[in-house]
This record gives sequence, structure tokens and C-alpha cells, in this order.
Amino acid sequence: MSNEIRKDYLLDRWTIIASERAKRPTDFAGRPSRTAEDKACPFCPGNEQMTPPAYLLCVPSEDGVRMEKDSDTTRTTNWLVRCIPNLYAALTPRKAVDFADDGLLRRRDGVGAHGVIIESPNHDEHPGTARLEQLELVVQAYMDALQSFSDWEYVQIFRNHGKEAGASLSHAHSQVIATPMIPKRVSDELQACRRWLKTEGSCPYCKIVEIERGGPRFIFENEGFVAFAPWASVHPFEFWIVPIRHQYTLLQLDATEKRAFSQILRACFGSLANALSDPPYSYGFHVAPNHGNYKYFHWHLEVYPKLSIQAGFEDSTDMFINVMPPETAAKSLRASLPKI
Amino acid sequence: MSNEIRKDYLLDRWTIIASERAKRPTDFAGRPSRTAEDKACPFCPGNEQMTPPAYLLCVPSEDGVRMEKDSDTTRTTNWLVRCIPNLYAALTPRKAVDFADDGLLRRRDGVGAHGVIIESPNHDEHPGTARLEQLELVVQAYMDALQSFSDWEYVQIFRNHGKEAGASLSHAHSQVIATPMIPKRVSDELQACRRWLKTEGSCPYCKIVEIERGGPRFIFENEGFVAFAPWASVHPFEFWIVPIRHQYTLLQLDATEKRAFSQILRACFGSLANALSDPPYSYGFHVAPNHGNYKYFHWHLEVYPKLSIQAGFEDSTDMFINVMPPETAAKSLRASLPKI
Repeated sequence: MSNEIRKDYLLDRWTIIASERAKRPTDFAGRPSRTAEDKACPFCPGNEQMTPPAYLLCVPSEDGVRMEKDSDTTRTTNWLVRCIPNLYAALTPRKAVDFADDGLLRRRDGVGAHGVIIESPNHDEHPGTARLEQLELVVQAYMDALQSFSDWEYVQIFRNHGKEAGASLSHAHSQVIATPMIPKRVSDELQACRRWLKTEGSCPYCKIVEIERGGPRFIFENEGFVAFAPWASVHPFEFWIVPIRHQYTLLQLDATEKRAFSQILRACFGSLANALSDPPYSYGFHVAPNHGNYKYFHWHLEVYPKLSIQAGFEDSTDMFINVMPPETAAKSLRASLPKI
Repeated sequence: MSNEIRKDYLLDRWTIIASERAKRPTDFAGRPSRTAEDKACPFCPGNEQMTPPAYLLCVPSEDGVRMEKDSDTTRTTNWLVRCIPNLYAALTPRKAVDFADDGLLRRRDGVGAHGVIIESPNHDEHPGTARLEQLELVVQAYMDALQSFSDWEYVQIFRNHGKEAGASLSHAHSQVIATPMIPKRVSDELQACRRWLKTEGSCPYCKIVEIERGGPRFIFENEGFVAFAPWASVHPFEFWIVPIRHQYTLLQLDATEKRAFSQILRACFGSLANALSDPPYSYGFHVAPNHGNYKYFHWHLEVYPKLSIQAGFEDSTDMFINVMPPETAAKSLRASLPKI
């Protein structure tokens, strides 16, 4: 069966039915992380033949770093960042089959793209301790992904760290899923932005930055970004990183902001690791969709530590219970920031 | 800080900030379940003084079973089902403080109720193997909860089984959270029902029952209910149990249906345990809210086995990836049904 995207009978909730993906390997033998019995890591240098060829490689060159596209890259082992198609893709790039609208049983063809960004040759690289130059390469790879997959409606870049956060391999990596539709969360955020813009005449995220800078939920800021625990945090120790300058996509980052973003990533993930012994977490970028005028949107990164389990209540209501007030979380994260 | 319910800056997403709840105990020492080192279980008979007094007890009597309300129940140890306030409540019954509408920082007072339904004196009771008579008492306790908390806007009854599904204690129990507002999921379902009713002139769930009975996603049916894996299953092996007769609340169950519901619970949870070695799962009832005319709604139970982890992609998009097609799950669950 080809992957397909099915809509709930009634709700605006879409599920990618991706049976091939069940076969993906894992190197998490037990909890909390990998053990000495691990098999060869398909993401480590020297094992490139275990994965599809890269669509983008960052390799060292005379004048720093060179980006190499679609070369026969399974032979290159001295890469710094390696971007490959996901071998167990949730969505795959092909011409979509049109399905008839079938009332309560609606679906779309499971087309799109699914990539992996291997963030470093170093298996255990962590954004809290990585070199700034390496983090900048990762940010560059994120920007490249937004461009590479810009034919699709939306590009979701995300990172899962730790088995409890859904990572199946422990080697430092992010993922990119390009979807043939604008995901619900994104369309909800866009709609709320438009509504705020209409009544208040400004970008709500610019206002949020103004409210949270230096307030009780503030964590860190630098010349481009501010980090804070959001007002209605769904997850304990949740934090957001928001550009101070209004911009709707990561592709608008200038050189200073790119460096500032790498720096705030390192500060915040260093703090999270310090405060809570490197907990599992997921993060996801919220950016404007590809087609249309979404300049009113304000991109940002949302980080969700996985320290609690959402279950029967949350699943049934779409309401959440968080036992950690964001003010307390921010205080603890401020106190745990690494010295720069 | 009192519990409060905060709204996301922009989204219609509400989080109960419940710092007191962080203190609740757990008896899950390791994975996958409790160990011999466990402390005394506060839900086992003889330990009633470890919990608040019951608001409802089912106790054996000459002519079967007697319901006892609000007696000094910490001294009664021969109960069959025991309903108590949650000692670490997410929401508490008191007069609500009115908060001013503060633009991007909206909140409500964290009022409501949070109860625990201890389903059996038997610590390891499981709906897949419990006696039908005992399951009927649990269903009766669910119905009683809907009545007891009917002053609040909504009553969410749910069950978490296993640590991975968010249970903090392993003794068989369900929970009830009464909320001072209609949760988003419920209002989304109500809205979709109204829309379908308007265009098609019928209840969509009645139509879903018609579609799924005997189809590729069908699992089990009896004289009152049908169980099936839903079309756009979010979770691997997800299944729903829906009354065949249109009814908007569990309180409309007649005696035959009550027994049929207990029977289908036992069949489906027996099958789930057989097929997958008793996996962790959550379930939640979807019923009509308390105030207003919601007779057009069709109550049902949704069951979510916790066999995969939702993380960065799902959290960022509100789209889901399910590696188990519901047709395959249903086939496996049909084959694993216990013999009656």
C-alpha cells in the first residue's frame, strides 16, 4: 500500500498512514540511551553506503566550507554535515494520485519529501556543546532544506533527541518533512496572526517578544533573538526562540542573525542539559508556507522537553496539564545558562 | 500559586498549569511495570486512609451490590469499586476567580473537579479479563461520575494503563476531570456534527457505524455496540467503540446496553492484550457537554494504544504519522479476540 494521508471522519486532523516506515531500525537498545552492543551507526562517517546518497554535503575546503549538491557522495567521508533522503520516508516525491472526495472517508496521496540532516560526524554532538561554526552549518542546512523542498506546500524542520522524544537513532540529526498541504497547526497560527493584525494592526509575535523580554518567563537574549518559556507552556520546561526582527522565514536570516541564532541555540540547549541532565526533547520550526503571501507571519522555534506523558485526558480533550509553571521553568533555565 | 488554565498567545489551546500535581507519587520503579520493591499501594483495600474519603463506594449487599455516597468510607475495606477525589488534582472545586481578558496573556481560574475511580480491589484487574459483573460496576461508576459532576461544563472520563501511557500508579483505575469549559476537541466534534447534520440531515456517527460494520476496519460487535479501527487512526492499533443506537451520553444506556458495553470492553481489551502482550494504552469517553442541547451528538469511546512516540513532527504540525494501517490493525485484533 502506498502511503496516504487520511482525514479524520469529522475533525480537521490528518494522519499519514505510512506502513513502510514501520521497518526503520533503531539503535536504542534500552533506556535511557544507546549501549555498547549497538550495531554500526548508519549516520557515522565511513558508513555512508548504509544510507541513500546525500543531496547536500558540507565539506571542508581551502577557504573554509564548500557545499556539494547531489554528487556521488557515498564515497565522501570527510563531511561536516550530510543531508540525505530518509530511507523510511513518511512521504515520498512522486506525482500525486487524485482521490475522489468520499464524504466521511477522505484522503490524499502521500506525496512529499522526507530528509535527514546529519548534523555532525560526531555521533554524540549536542547543540548545547557544539562549536558555533558547526551549529552555523546546521542552520545553513536548515535554510537549504527550506529552499530544496520549496515546491511543496510546507517544509517542516524538526529534531527529536532521545528515545523518549521519538528518535530512532541516537546520532545527532534533524529531519525535514515537506508536505503537500499546509499542516493544521501552521494554518491555525496564520489565521490567528491575520486576526490579530486586523484588530491590532501589528504582528502578535513582535508583541509577544516585547512582553516576554526581561519578564518573569524570560530566559536569554542576544543581538538577534530572545528565548522565553511561553505563557501557556504545554510541556514542562518548554521554551521558544523568536527572532527580534520581524521575518517570516529562516531564509531571511542575515549573517549576524545566523550567528546569533547558533549562539542562542547553544545557550538554551546548554542550559536545558545543565538544568535537567540532558533530557529528551523535540523541537520544530514554525515558518511561513511556500506558496502565497505570508509576510505577516513571524517564524520561530518551539522546543518541547519530554519530561511528562500526555495521555487519556490530553488525547480526549486537546487540553493539556503542565505541572511546571513557565515562570519557575524560566527561572531554573536562566540559572543554568552556560558561561559564554 | 493556584492552578490556572492558560490560553496559548494565539491558538485555541488551553493548558492547566497545575504545580501541586507535580508532587504525586508513582509506583512504577522501572519499565515495564511495577517491581517487588513497590511501596504500599494507596488504591489497595486496607490502605484507604492513604487517600481522601470516597464520594462513592460500591459494596456488596444482601441483594447484590449497594451504592454508598459520602459515608465515612476510609473504614470500609470490602468495596468493589471506590471513587475518590484525586489528591493531586489538576482542577479543584471552588468558586472561580474572574480574570480580566489580558490580550495575548489570557487565563481562567483552575476550577473543576478531579476524581479517581478505583475499578477493583484487585490491583492487577484488567478490562480484558475482569468479570462482566465487575466491569458493569465500573460502567455504573462512570455514569455516576457524569451525574456527580454535571454542574461543570464538561466531564472527561479517561483511563491510562501503563507508565508509558501516563499512569502514575499501576492499580487498575480510571480518572474523571470535570472542566469549567468545553474542551477544544469536544467543541470541534460538536461543530463537525452540526455541519454534517445540516448538509446530510443525519448523525455522522450513525453513518460511520453503518460504514464500518463488517468492513475492512471492523473488529467486533454485539447487540449494542460496534468496535472498529477508525479510518484515519492516529495511533497504531487505535480502536473506537460506538453505540449502535444514537445516544448523546452514557447516561442513556439501558440495562441491555450496559451489559453489552461491558462485554465489548472485555472482548476488545482482551484482544489488544492477546495481540500485543498487554501494551500501554489510554482511552477517553467522548460525550455531550452538560449544559445545552447536544442531543445530536453520538457518544463513543476512543482507545489509543501507546506503541509509538509522537514528537517533533506531530507537535509542530498537528498532523500525525501512523505506521500501522487500520485495516491491518483490525485484521490482527479480529484474529486475537478472546473466545467467549
